Amino acid sequence: MASKGVNINGDRLNSTLQSTCSQWGALSTGTGMCRLTLTQEDKEVRDWLVKECQSLGCDVKVDQMGNIFAIRPGKEKGRKAIAMGSHLDTQPAGGRYDGILGVQAALEVLRTLHENKIETHCPIALIDWTNEEGARFPGAMMASGVWSQKSTTPLEACWALQDKEGVHMKDALEQTGYLGTTSCDHRENGLECHFELHIEQGPILEKEGKSVGVVTSVQGMKWFAIRVEGTEGHSGTTPMAGRADALVTASRLITAVRDAALKTELGVATVGVIQSDTSSQATIPAGVNFIIDVRCSTDDMVEQLAAAIFAEFDNITAQEKNRTSYKIERSWGLPETIFHQHCVESVRASAIRLVGENQVMDMKSRAGHDSAWTSRVCPTSIIFVPSKDGISHNPNEFTSEEDCALGAQTLLDAMLYYDRKVESGVF
Amino acid sequence: MASKGVNINGDRLNSTLQSTCSQWGALSTGTGMCRLTLTQEDKEVRDWLVKECQSLGCDVKVDQMGNIFAIRPGKEKGRKAIAMGSHLDTQPAGGRYDGILGVQAALEVLRTLHENKIETHCPIALIDWTNEEGARFPGAMMASGVWSQKSTTPLEACWALQDKEGVHMKDALEQTGYLGTTSCDHRENGLECHFELHIEQGPILEKEGKSVGVVTSVQGMKWFAIRVEGTEGHSGTTPMAGRADALVTASRLITAVRDAALKTELGVATVGVIQSDTSSQATIPAGVNFIIDVRCSTDDMVEQLAAAIFAEFDNITAQEKNRTSYKIERSWGLPETIFHQHCVESVRASAIRLVGENQVMDMKSRAGHDSAWTSRVCPTSIIFVPSKDGISHNPNEFTSEEDCALGAQTLLDAMLYYDRKVESGVF
Repeated sequence: MASKGVNINGDRLNSTLQSTCSQWGALSTGTGMCRLTLTQEDKEVRDWLVKECQSLGCDVKVDQMGNIFAIRPGKEKGRKAIAMGSHLDTQPAGGRYDGILGVQAALEVLRTLHENKIETHCPIALIDWTNEEGARFPGAMMASGVWSQKSTTPLEACWALQDKEGVHMKDALEQTGYLGTTSCDHRENGLECHFELHIEQGPILEKEGKSVGVVTSVQGMKWFAIRVEGTEGHSGTTPMAGRADALVTASRLITAVRDAALKTELGVATVGVIQSDTSSQATIPAGVNFIIDVRCSTDDMVEQLAAAIFAEFDNITAQEKNRTSYKIERSWGLPETIFHQHCVESVRASAIRLVGENQVMDMKSRAGHDSAWTSRVCPTSIIFVPSKDGISHNPNEFTSEEDCALGAQTLLDAMLYYDRKVESGVF
Repeated sequence: MASKGVNINGDRLNSTLQSTCSQWGALSTGTGMCRLTLTQEDKEVRDWLVKECQSLGCDVKVDQMGNIFAIRPGKEKGRKAIAMGSHLDTQPAGGRYDGILGVQAALEVLRTLHENKIETHCPIALIDWTNEEGARFPGAMMASGVWSQKSTTPLEACWALQDKEGVHMKDALEQTGYLGTTSCDHRENGLECHFELHIEQGPILEKEGKSVGVVTSVQGMKWFAIRVEGTEGHSGTTPMAGRADALVTASRLITAVRDAALKTELGVATVGVIQSDTSSQATIPAGVNFIIDVRCSTDDMVEQLAAAIFAEFDNITAQEKNRTSYKIERSWGLPETIFHQHCVESVRASAIRLVGENQVMDMKSRAGHDSAWTSRVCPTSIIFVPSKDGISHNPNEFTSEEDCALGAQTLLDAMLYYDRKVESGVF
């Protein structure tokens, strides 16, 4: 791999990524990570990132959702920035690449521009989006959603969310020093376009023997927070026949979620989170909460799969003689996304120039990304690099140093390609 | 209701019970209680109890499991005490009567003996058994089990147990000041016999129109801590077909627990506690823990029902192609109990004298009680009073002031009956 222009430093990218992961949020064994958003680990890596970007001559703004915008000025004053964004937070038992690679690659791009004294036409922004994982405060890609003004969960509703310990998101922002004053609204703090380097989190590139994925779309997703209610009682003295056991009903519903996805073949459906009101082995549970995650190629298919799931829910509660009931307490989602042709062209052309046409393929993303929200308000696309065995949200998540470097080089080249097209008036 | 001997004060019993519940552990509405063992609320009601008993001339000992023994001396020095024991802790959403009535009634008995200056032959003990509910540290009737030396969970294993916040039981004992020095072993700190007043926690007395239940046995119980393991993965990128979702399997197993109990009609089986490793909606759960509570009239039936449940577990994991697995991490239990004829006779005779034969019935307890453990090492029995609608482990748990008073009077009379029989050499 050799760029015809400026070259990123793959060793520096890798050593920075590994050392910051070791320092902030590493699990005790292997390369597993637990860096939940706005925790002490997340605060410290953010503080480090801000200093690094400032040392490269960037202006740093923090918005009301804690999103960090580090902006390297361009020749054209007052112009919106070409952005490279992703996230530094992880799942509770995640890896070192999902999100983190995108931000670290963006930093490597800034370092490369700086040491090569390259002047771009547009300003260049690195963005760290807050709470992409939604693992601490429920709602994935939360802060890019607020910024886009297209999410159904606006700023105040996000601020009011609580983690498992009852900490409000606004307080977590304040306590870490990341409750910024910049408006979290693309209309007041806009971007020229948004690129994101991300690991595939699936097995396709590896299986097809390709190095770079040009992501042209993201599947539609919807989440449903479900509450099941029954009647509490003593596990020893309440006869089986008359029980209204919320956990038995919830168990049947969770099984039905999986079965509906298998049967309809419309997409995937998962229950990742469950919580019961009781913590006593001797009490019949009266209340259970869980969240359903539904994802399909199109929004129509998402609706169809959700309808199949809830039809089965109604069957089950009827079979349970309606002693227990369920309700959908909240639903939110990310509509299907088609990326902008200018960004897709920038990525595709850059990747092909780097590794040749047969190492590059167009693909769809099955995971949600901040880019799906930015895409609603500015030209956007994603660059995928391979994930070993397709594993992600798992400490065994792995992408080789070479693939990370190739991704970062593609990011730099795509961004410069786009910048030249803007300068020449083509985009 | 009028005793032919000494009369307890029902108003005083009720006002003391209600006011101490309001002060220590009351939920915000109604008469619901959350007084988990060895919390601040539990410490404060214990401190109050100790002072009350001391003011009545009792010696107070605290053992290594925090069990409180308040002993009023008898005429015969060096004799073991006739005990009245129960527990002051509750479920996380429990009521004011389960356990609490037994201790408050024992205190009312001590007050009555004191104000009437009654000298008994044997010493009389009030006991508050620690962690009867097992709601904070898993394992119901834990500390009476240790005292009896018959439980499969000995002292050190109990001390090492952790609550949901990771606090060890030994530290909780120490922090509240209830890590006593008296040996938690009936061989070193024994009792003459043990009576317990308790609410029925079932609907039978109410349905049959009876006032007092003479409990002659307790059904057998066994608990199983289950761990289900699968493979973590991204909820968007992992195809449905290859998944090893621990929560889907756990859900099928939990449903099977209920179905096996319904089908075999051997007894009751309940899953009250569930916990998943993941707190992320976008992650396929890799590990789920839950506890099965099995109760039947006999130990044989408990074994049969457990066998039926685990046979179905094996079917289900085979159907899931053994991608997920389950294991029994720990099992513990309480064997079936037949109460001692001397104690049963004392309760039956006293109750019949108070309210007449047709208001009294023999019965079996379907809930576990500390008395089931004491019964293994000293004569024991339980007095039941009615539970409104059979409801328990629920804020709506209720027993009328009159029924509470009748129970306390029966407790006093039974204890004095037993004492006279000991004095006259019959028992």
